Amino acid sequence: MIRIVTISILLFAGLSMGYSQQHPCLIITKESIQQLQMGANKYELFNNSYASAKAEVDEAMRLPISVPTPKDLAGGFTHEQHKNNFLILQKAGVVFQISKDEKYAQWIKDVLFAYAELYPTFDRHPDKRSYSPGKFFWQCLNDANWLVYVSQAYDCIYDWLPKNDREKLNKNLFRPLADFLSIETPQFFNRIHNHSTWGNAAVGMIGLVMNDEELINRALYGIPDELVKIGGKDNDGATIYQEGAKGFLAQIDHSFSPDGYYTEGPYYQRYAMYPFLLFAQALANTRPKQEIFKYKNGVLIKAVYALLNQTDSNGEFFPINDAAKGMSYLSRELISAVGVAYYFGTKDPSLLSVAKLQQRVSLDVAGLSVAEGISKGMEKPFIKKSIQLSDGANGDEGAIGILRSREPNQDLTLVMKYSKHGMGHGHFDKLSFSMYNNGKEVFQDYGAARWVNIEQKDGGGYLKENNSWAKQSIAHNTVVVNGQTQFNGSVQVADTFHGTPYLFETNTKGYQVMSAFETNGYEGIKMQRTLVLIEGNHSIVLDLFKINSEKKNTYDFPLYFKGDVMKTSFAFQVSKELLPMGKNNGYQHLWKEASGVVSDDKLSFSWFDKGSFQTISSAVHAGDSVLFARVGANDPSFNLRREPVFIIRRTDTGNTLFANVYEVHGNYSPVEEIATDAYSSIRKVSIVHDAMNYSVVKIEHVNNQVDYFAMANNNSKASAKHVVEIAGEKLEWTGAYKLFNRTEK
Amino acid sequence: MIRIVTISILLFAGLSMGYSQQHPCLIITKESIQQLQMGANKYELFNNSYASAKAEVDEAMRLPISVPTPKDLAGGFTHEQHKNNFLILQKAGVVFQISKDEKYAQWIKDVLFAYAELYPTFDRHPDKRSYSPGKFFWQCLNDANWLVYVSQAYDCIYDWLPKNDREKLNKNLFRPLADFLSIETPQFFNRIHNHSTWGNAAVGMIGLVMNDEELINRALYGIPDELVKIGGKDNDGATIYQEGAKGFLAQIDHSFSPDGYYTEGPYYQRYAMYPFLLFAQALANTRPKQEIFKYKNGVLIKAVYALLNQTDSNGEFFPINDAAKGMSYLSRELISAVGVAYYFGTKDPSLLSVAKLQQRVSLDVAGLSVAEGISKGMEKPFIKKSIQLSDGANGDEGAIGILRSREPNQDLTLVMKYSKHGMGHGHFDKLSFSMYNNGKEVFQDYGAARWVNIEQKDGGGYLKENNSWAKQSIAHNTVVVNGQTQFNGSVQVADTFHGTPYLFETNTKGYQVMSAFETNGYEGIKMQRTLVLIEGNHSIVLDLFKINSEKKNTYDFPLYFKGDVMKTSFAFQVSKELLPMGKNNGYQHLWKEASGVVSDDKLSFSWFDKGSFQTISSAVHAGDSVLFARVGANDPSFNLRREPVFIIRRTDTGNTLFANVYEVHGNYSPVEEIATDAYSSIRKVSIVHDAMNYSVVKIEHVNNQVDYFAMANNNSKASAKHVVEIAGEKLEWTGAYKLFNRTEK
Repeated sequence: MIRIVTISILLFAGLSMGYSQQHPCLIITKESIQQLQMGANKYELFNNSYASAKAEVDEAMRLPISVPTPKDLAGGFTHEQHKNNFLILQKAGVVFQISKDEKYAQWIKDVLFAYAELYPTFDRHPDKRSYSPGKFFWQCLNDANWLVYVSQAYDCIYDWLPKNDREKLNKNLFRPLADFLSIETPQFFNRIHNHSTWGNAAVGMIGLVMNDEELINRALYGIPDELVKIGGKDNDGATIYQEGAKGFLAQIDHSFSPDGYYTEGPYYQRYAMYPFLLFAQALANTRPKQEIFKYKNGVLIKAVYALLNQTDSNGEFFPINDAAKGMSYLSRELISAVGVAYYFGTKDPSLLSVAKLQQRVSLDVAGLSVAEGISKGMEKPFIKKSIQLSDGANGDEGAIGILRSREPNQDLTLVMKYSKHGMGHGHFDKLSFSMYNNGKEVFQDYGAARWVNIEQKDGGGYLKENNSWAKQSIAHNTVVVNGQTQFNGSVQVADTFHGTPYLFETNTKGYQVMSAFETNGYEGIKMQRTLVLIEGNHSIVLDLFKINSEKKNTYDFPLYFKGDVMKTSFAFQVSKELLPMGKNNGYQHLWKEASGVVSDDKLSFSWFDKGSFQTISSAVHAGDSVLFARVGANDPSFNLRREPVFIIRRTDTGNTLFANVYEVHGNYSPVEEIATDAYSSIRKVSIVHDAMNYSVVKIEHVNNQVDYFAMANNNSKASAKHVVEIAGEKLEWTGAYKLFNRTEK
Repeated sequence: MIRIVTISILLFAGLSMGYSQQHPCLIITKESIQQLQMGANKYELFNNSYASAKAEVDEAMRLPISVPTPKDLAGGFTHEQHKNNFLILQKAGVVFQISKDEKYAQWIKDVLFAYAELYPTFDRHPDKRSYSPGKFFWQCLNDANWLVYVSQAYDCIYDWLPKNDREKLNKNLFRPLADFLSIETPQFFNRIHNHSTWGNAAVGMIGLVMNDEELINRALYGIPDELVKIGGKDNDGATIYQEGAKGFLAQIDHSFSPDGYYTEGPYYQRYAMYPFLLFAQALANTRPKQEIFKYKNGVLIKAVYALLNQTDSNGEFFPINDAAKGMSYLSRELISAVGVAYYFGTKDPSLLSVAKLQQRVSLDVAGLSVAEGISKGMEKPFIKKSIQLSDGANGDEGAIGILRSREPNQDLTLVMKYSKHGMGHGHFDKLSFSMYNNGKEVFQDYGAARWVNIEQKDGGGYLKENNSWAKQSIAHNTVVVNGQTQFNGSVQVADTFHGTPYLFETNTKGYQVMSAFETNGYEGIKMQRTLVLIEGNHSIVLDLFKINSEKKNTYDFPLYFKGDVMKTSFAFQVSKELLPMGKNNGYQHLWKEASGVVSDDKLSFSWFDKGSFQTISSAVHAGDSVLFARVGANDPSFNLRREPVFIIRRTDTGNTLFANVYEVHGNYSPVEEIATDAYSSIRKVSIVHDAMNYSVVKIEHVNNQVDYFAMANNNSKASAKHVVEIAGEKLEWTGAYKLFNRTEK
């Protein structure tokens, strides 16, 4: 449910009247050109970025201009050619303005005229699989990409072009394309969605170039509701249109939480940031009084920080929801974003250290100021801390929790999702977590089933296994009840709920805690997950997954480990032949490789991956099953990665508590062939109290140290006093939780 | 069959008489100490190496001395403790000599006395799974390691020790241990095998320290035959003893080909090089007139070059035969080896560039001279060229062929095995090949099924899947006939044969060729594989696998690709349930994931791995089967890596020719999300002539270029003239082979 936030829309409308532009005005401004020209000589990073852009443009200009009639999907020739064109055109515009060499302007003009000639020769792209087929591309989204980039190129040659040419291009190409993307495709333009953000920015940016108030207003406020058919679904299964919220300002209102979290997750946020920030930059340049970067308490800048905080130590985004793994803050979108956040923000020197890793800056005053800061040695480390990022326009619809070890030279990171679903790109993964150590995935989130822009794989789009596997609950590190997917796999239902934060405590000495509830994913079932990062020379993670249910159920607790099985405390039998684990909800994609039954109340499993050992130590019930499975069943085109999972299965149970300790230990180098700390430091994990109000877990270490972790499950008050009796001994504490360290006699 | 080579044994024996040593004399010499002390201040690399050795020793000396009663296997506590002791003792000896701080000498003495006390308290190691159980370790091999290292430490404090202490240690520890490793365990000491090399070196080195001629003679010439029971097998299934060849000099004679190739393969060569070179260095220092580094035409130095040439671009050894992947020239053995090859060889500046990558030098004059060379900027690149390394003591028992692209900025590498079997560590993989591109495996060799020194995995030793899977023919990129393993899996039989080199041509412009025969692996079947590296901006590989057989057979042509299936020219059906592909010969470990039948005379298959695309384009027969399988069936302890294989299967066929083209093309970055050259450049590969004497293959490129590769299969004479008529056109050439480039009209 999207609530309408109506901040200063009228004011904005008033301010936008009566400007008369000089060009360039959008990203590069007429006033800044001299500075940029100087910068190209003065600051190494800016100079390198400029030289590499110029080299790319020069290389492209050596080839004949190619503006082919649209035919292919992503990854195919016509798609990639048009994509390449817009990327190069944008760079050529900048190179023209900095070099003042007219050959670049002439080339841009020639390409644009080729587009203007092509434009009226066909209707929409021949492939109709999109809910909103584009013009040069199979979906309007890509056409909007094109226009966001090309409007910048056009802006750069606007004043250089004879008036006559300008009018031709406006009339035959740009205005028609802007209409095409807005009033002719309202189901694309009027949503709260990253597609529409691109659409809004595209129309707004070309509107600013052409000084076309009608387009600018469309961009900022959307188009009239009566033009739009309400209802329908897009290709991802998400509802297309919700009345009331539309246009760029509404995108800002609704897309970001006050913490700058974007409900689709960081992969899409990264993608959406470019139009958000570029159009904002253009507005800041052309309409500075509107103070767009202060809009909604400066959320656009906050969003850049939120993005940077959602990365592992390689700078790769946590693959929450639909996300292609490997995407990182080195992407071109983040290069712009970091520049904008630096220049239009507080000139935060820690952003410079990120820019230094990016090794490029955007070719505008923002990038220039970054290059200057770096050349003056002003950068400070960007330290990622534990952070909870609220979700929802008002920040009250769940959150993403990130805990990071505070110990020096450690980089143990936990990510838990108890946010909103994430719309069409959301996964059914409430209370799922992932764990990283030094940039390595210890428990992975599968991400999306997609090869972005690789044509061989179904045109580079989402594969059908994205729905049948990647979005399903069993594909995530969260408890699955009775083999079902949360919300019965309905995006519509899932979108109306969110997780509930319970604890997020990062200031306690020696350990940090995050805890959240999910009460809607399964009917009649209340789930609570608590992750405790216990810090020390050898940090470990305690994971408490508590379930309340009046009915009895089967619980599957999957852990997507990576690497090779080393040792288990339990016997298991490998399957003589491999069968899928189930028929639906993602289980049909898991081969059951091995299974066993635990005869004891404890379990441990160690594996090896990329130089280190990992161990799960678990408090279980005798009779629990353990399963090893592997992704890849019912996968007719080898679209899925053959990756393993370890599952603890508990049947015929109502209320229950799972308690696991996770640790990364030791190392092994194939060159040295010496294994250190190859064994777990944990002797036993046991649940010593499991009730509605309290959970208490005991952790016995190999070195005879004993810890108790006690928590109140339903009372997060810091002042509340609690007492639980364990084997005749009282554990007393104040506040929701406490870790008791003891050394046994 | 080992032929006896009796070079200068008597001379040697004569020269070894009557020396009286001063200590240290083995690796560090009394005369060199001052130089080393200076070097520790003067040359950065030597200084760093010394400082890090000293820091390690200081760290170890802070702990209580621990000389535990033997109990564990590799990876277990007592094993690792004794291993750590010998590594640190050796360093402590050096640190004592350079620092002259007696606390190091005292510590060495204390540790040695602890060993002397422990030694008589028990018989052999309690674990009896080795064919020659050791004393401190489960096998004599590790005890020999211990003595090779500890004799160096002992040498460093020998003159410092009171005579009384020396005599005690000699009598109670070192002489008994030397006897234990030699006359008390002749099945270990008297073989031609890396185990015995360690044993010989250990006994020889302690003999040199103690000036004990009896031990030195045992080391050099072995022990009398009458002490040795002939026959029996070791843990790897290899014959234990072959009469006649024994002792260190015979090891040199028999272990290395004249090119320095070591029949067990580079992984074991790396391991064996340490005792070979250390004992040799000790002999060079103590008995320089024997000119050990000139023995057998300087083969010990050549062997270092052979090793360096058997690495990929990361410096990792090709995993020929039993080999743990990831072992590289960064290992401690190669650090010594490179130093020795530099100092005792020709002071080859290209070795300095390898030493620079190693970032450490050995703490002796060899290491010092390397550090000096580097500090003076003398290094030159070590360029790995195409090379054929002959096998067999006389170089006439097959070879390993390595082709490397000569194009700038390319690193395409082909490795083919047509050597001897490789004794107990050999794999049944004649005519198998592997392919690398820029340090990435394109077609992998599985290596060994073993987790070296990781105790959880069966004590760190070879797993039973090493025999049942890793050694089998189907585990390799070579054609398997009728589902059988070459030589019916008999090491004894395989050891009596070798492949036959046919062509190794690396000077032809634009392409290189290697070709070899295997006629013994399968009865009545003659196999010939020819690999052609066709070089250009986009280099490709042509693979011709020719089989002559009077009987009809089933041929499986496996290719162990890595990564994700992108596109196939043929339809296939994935298996609804996975079954093992067979019952034995390794097939029991392959899950059949998918299969299809080729309806055409061509086939292509593309996959994606780590940023690039790869394609096989193949000339096939309509009716050939294609299979996708995955390693991991019948693997009760998850000992095998779940890796894929693509198999072309041709049934009911006698003579036949397989012709494949392999290419690596394009790239894709998850940050850029742009795929370039995602499609193969090959339109079709076809066999246009397939007869006993000639094979001709046509390669049609997408750009309409057409190549013909023609070869004479049984006549390698450079002067021979050949002519074959293809579709009315004559192809004429001189010499065994020719690549014809044409552009079709």
